[in-house]
Amino acid sequence: MRFKFPLMAIGLEVAMIVLFGVFVQYENVQNSGQPSNTSSPAVMNSFFRLYPLFQHVNVMIFVGFGFLMTFLKKYGFSSVGFNFFIAALGLQWGTIIQGLLNDHGEKFHISIHSLISADFSTTTVLVSFGAVLGKISPIQVLIMTILEIAVFNGNEYLFAEIFQATDIGGSMVIHAFGAYFGLAVAGILYRSNQIWEHHNKQSDIHSDLFAMIGTLFLWIFWPSFNSTLAVPEEKQNRAIINTYFSLAACVLTSYAFSSLVERRGKLSMAHIQNATLAGGVAVGTCADMEINPYGSMIIGSIAGIVSVIGFKFLTPFFATTLRIQDTCGVHNLHGLPGIVGGLASIVVIAMGASDVSTTAMQAATLVTSIGTAVAGGLITGLILKLPIWEQPPDEDCYDDCVYWEVPTVDDSLSLSRFQPM
Amino acid sequence: MRFKFPLMAIGLEVAMIVLFGVFVQYENVQNSGQPSNTSSPAVMNSFFRLYPLFQHVNVMIFVGFGFLMTFLKKYGFSSVGFNFFIAALGLQWGTIIQGLLNDHGEKFHISIHSLISADFSTTTVLVSFGAVLGKISPIQVLIMTILEIAVFNGNEYLFAEIFQATDIGGSMVIHAFGAYFGLAVAGILYRSNQIWEHHNKQSDIHSDLFAMIGTLFLWIFWPSFNSTLAVPEEKQNRAIINTYFSLAACVLTSYAFSSLVERRGKLSMAHIQNATLAGGVAVGTCADMEINPYGSMIIGSIAGIVSVIGFKFLTPFFATTLRIQDTCGVHNLHGLPGIVGGLASIVVIAMGASDVSTTAMQAATLVTSIGTAVAGGLITGLILKLPIWEQPPDEDCYDDCVYWEVPTVDDSLSLSRFQPM
Amino acid sequence: MRFKFPLMAIGLEVAMIVLFGVFVQYENVQNSGQPSNTSSPAVMNSFFRLYPLFQHVNVMIFVGFGFLMTFLKKYGFSSVGFNFFIAALGLQWGTIIQGLLNDHGEKFHISIHSLISADFSTTTVLVSFGAVLGKISPIQVLIMTILEIAVFNGNEYLFAEIFQATDIGGSMVIHAFGAYFGLAVAGILYRSNQIWEHHNKQSDIHSDLFAMIGTLFLWIFWPSFNSTLAVPEEKQNRAIINTYFSLAACVLTSYAFSSLVERRGKLSMAHIQNATLAGGVAVGTCADMEINPYGSMIIGSIAGIVSVIGFKFLTPFFATTLRIQDTCGVHNLHGLPGIVGGLASIVVIAMGASDVSTTAMQAATLVTSIGTAVAGGLITGLILKLPIWEQPPDEDCYDDCVYWEVPTVDDSLSLSRFQPM
Repeated sequence: MRFKFPLMAIGLEVAMIVLFGVFVQYENVQNSGQPSNTSSPAVMNSFFRLYPLFQHVNVMIFVGFGFLMTFLKKYGFSSVGFNFFIAALGLQWGTIIQGLLNDHGEKFHISIHSLISADFSTTTVLVSFGAVLGKISPIQVLIMTILEIAVFNGNEYLFAEIFQATDIGGSMVIHAFGAYFGLAVAGILYRSNQIWEHHNKQSDIHSDLFAMIGTLFLWIFWPSFNSTLAVPEEKQNRAIINTYFSLAACVLTSYAFSSLVERRGKLSMAHIQNATLAGGVAVGTCADMEINPYGSMIIGSIAGIVSVIGFKFLTPFFATTLRIQDTCGVHNLHGLPGIVGGLASIVVIAMGASDVSTTAMQAATLVTSIGTAVAGGLITGLILKLPIWEQPPDEDCYDDCVYWEVPTVDDSLSLSRFQPM
Repeated sequence: MRFKFPLMAIGLEVAMIVLFGVFVQYENVQNSGQPSNTSSPAVMNSFFRLYPLFQHVNVMIFVGFGFLMTFLKKYGFSSVGFNFFIAALGLQWGTIIQGLLNDHGEKFHISIHSLISADFSTTTVLVSFGAVLGKISPIQVLIMTILEIAVFNGNEYLFAEIFQATDIGGSMVIHAFGAYFGLAVAGILYRSNQIWEHHNKQSDIHSDLFAMIGTLFLWIFWPSFNSTLAVPEEKQNRAIINTYFSLAACVLTSYAFSSLVERRGKLSMAHIQNATLAGGVAVGTCADMEINPYGSMIIGSIAGIVSVIGFKFLTPFFATTLRIQDTCGVHNLHGLPGIVGGLASIVVIAMGASDVSTTAMQAATLVTSIGTAVAGGLITGLILKLPIWEQPPDEDCYDDCVYWEVPTVDDSLSLSRFQPM
Repeated sequence: MRFKFPLMAIGLEVAMIVLFGVFVQYENVQNSGQPSNTSSPAVMNSFFRLYPLFQHVNVMIFVGFGFLMTFLKKYGFSSVGFNFFIAALGLQWGTIIQGLLNDHGEKFHISIHSLISADFSTTTVLVSFGAVLGKISPIQVLIMTILEIAVFNGNEYLFAEIFQATDIGGSMVIHAFGAYFGLAVAGILYRSNQIWEHHNKQSDIHSDLFAMIGTLFLWIFWPSFNSTLAVPEEKQNRAIINTYFSLAACVLTSYAFSSLVERRGKLSMAHIQNATLAGGVAVGTCADMEINPYGSMIIGSIAGIVSVIGFKFLTPFFATTLRIQDTCGVHNLHGLPGIVGGLASIVVIAMGASDVSTTAMQAATLVTSIGTAVAGGLITGLILKLPIWEQPPDEDCYDDCVYWEVPTVDDSLSLSRFQPM
């Protein structure tokens, strides 16, 4: 870590500045899809109309994902800190990659849509990061961010331009993609020497409460995530309403099934922190379709159930039999609910409730998203496995001490903020 | 807890889905109160205009109330977790009840107003929950949510349709109602065997800081709560400004009186977490009236004083003499300031600063809100007292261990996230 | 503390109410800078258009600054609590002072712009408070708030009316001003008896995570801070985009340089919590200029580097050689990056990328802002040094116990919420 990480980070930032200098321009406000009467300041352009939703998504990315992963009692600095780093890098790199792809290598403009799309690129990395949390170094974090965003944008181009399918909230192309990419990386980085249940892989009362900060902000702003790129007004309103009620229904089934599967009917914080959000993932693809509130509540209810069952039974199975250690259980929060979302869209389109895509193209998107994710994740995993990226040794996994100056618990040894020189 | 709670939650969610399927429709965007020029996407409909405020209210409900109640050091999971459950259930149930009442049993549309109104229904339950925090089981939480939202909507119908009174921020119909409903339940559930000061009923440094997260988000977004249903533009702007300055004034008197009543002039976190918000409650009824900023500052100042004095002197009196144990002191944050708000509206209307209601109708609203709340709370309390709802025993009150898998403090016994099967 | 603080707070609130009663009016919506077609409710006035951004700024002020300062393990209550008090007082006092200055002592209107400007006044005090955190009493907090906001508004009047310079995000007039004001106060209040590294001046794992809540909300909403007073649409959009990319670039250089300067390449939480925000400070003056995204990324990159180096080398130098103890390192987060921002604007204007001001006027603003801040801070420091304000003794610095009822760590002695009477 002595010089590799800082020099790579500086090099990347220099590269970003050069790429932005060559390719990126401000959007001409007159071109922002508004009618010509924008001379009146009172008529808002789409930038300003969507800005509050864009900020909701940013709260999800920086606070939501960041704190959701602080549940590990010794790994809070890394969870929220590496999440921060991934997001700041990802939003720059995502802007570039997507602009180059869409505008075929010419100069391109920054609109509110491109900012939001870059956020979505970043989200996939944050999802994948959850699968390898505690097991990779900052350099590996950096490399995974660069590679995954490139693969994501390739898959998205395929889905949007070739298949012309629909996935407004990204159930398939963001959540399932991110989950299976992360699982593939985690599978390659499997640590066979590691005792299965690492002694650091535990929560405490406070770390679980910090994680709830993440959960609640993700839950609250998920309707913005699923609606921000939808066509105004009707579809956008619908995406908000559908996501809201899917999430609400999902909370009830998550609590019910958590109590059902745990010993003596108790609730598990791991389920409440994660499964309650599965409704937001699963309703993503159908969010702007005419599925009616009750339809989204059915999707959300199923997602909550699937997610809790995944946490209870699938994660241990993955860790032991499939040799894939999924730290945060992203398969249960993003993988399975993402598949539920893709399948739901196939059902809904087959029933005629939407004509923006076909069942075949939706199925193709689901399959290729997972396929691309697994292939991309395997290759990324193999690159990350090279013994030059300062991966933490088994005994130091899930421990901030490896990469951070950490204050000690002993009072007399607490961390001084400003060491004497 | 083994099966009762999960089966009731699943049953309720199935019932919600059926009710939504039968009664709920999307709003026709063309009918959303907009002029006919909505063909231009740049002209926002009221849905989108109010969406940021709606989300502010959601932050208050899920993060604000949820974390405000985490001040008990052993009860953080339940505080934020049951709050989450109440809110998710309440927003579905509130949507149904209110739609059925307003549209007389016919199919009804979901608008941004109905979403916000459902949030308001839910708020009353969260207020009441504070009075019984630590003393009721998840099943009791669920039953109280269902009953209180029904009673609330009955009272609101009375107030809005029969009295045609005004209470834009809900000082009377939300806050006073929620507080007295909760106090009535707490009175019925009085635990005479319990030593008055339960050893779990304590905060620690971190639990008090988590609670401040709740306080600050409630404080910041209270202007949105009080203004979101106000008539645009003039009244809505006024409701924001009045609430903002009432809250600001309230902070100063809360700090001053906390220091005055505590030993050696110290400040009490319980006062700062709660009394600083009383200004938002108390200005609610008058928020959209022409009371001028200085008028709202007077209301806020009084509310802060009343609230601190309530915490210091009334809560112990309630617990000992009246045999009502009010865990969070909701009487001081919502009850008394709600009454202040109702009385302020009577004064303001008597002085001629508003002609939307009459002093008689405002007084009637205040009295019937409290009366309905007490009656509803007593009946709810009697139902909750039935010995079939798995109420926690005295010694386990204010302790997460009864209903949650809780990580232990001892390092070697911390909670593993994923138990081997 | 027994009576001085509460009586001064009450007296101030009474004074505020009187001043508001005499001078403050609601804004006439018809006069709010809108064209005459505001008869259509769909056309939003500027109040409502800016309200979401105003609330972003409030989240920064109350949650962002409040929690950023909770990094001290024994001083969390005071950090978030005194921050709350300063903000509530400052927004009232800032409204008055600025209205009186701009309207020459006549009655003035409250617009969304005046609310935001009052927030900006308050921000300077919160910046300065970071320099003296842990070393001053609530009475001193109160006096500093009153004095600094007065000086700030004087300087702003000079800058806006006389120099007619530009500083849309306040790099110079808010951040550099606040930092140097605070440093001057800290210099006067230098505690020579105090051992340099106070045993309470330490973080722990949880206090550092609480501080990250502050960091992330500040980071996310900084684009709103820098853009909220910009001219719509083009300049406002640009201010958002420039700030966003400056911050993103700043995160990468902060992480890189934190790792470079710390032992064995580790990361320092103090750097991540603070230096990652320097990009928002430094891009402030140029935020609405045509500097292009790559330009703002250069500014942000430099700010991150300067800030980390400041934390590592300048803060110890200040504390020992200059005898200025800067608790939070505000010189590194606000002082230096503020100067970078001012210098950047001079370069940008010299290069012809903006014609709203001249290099001379920008330089004059930078110099007079720092000069006024230092002069104002010295005088304020001398007033605060009077031995009548109950300043904490050396051994009680950075400790909540002096001013708060604090729950003890020992379980049996934890703080009961409601003492028996």
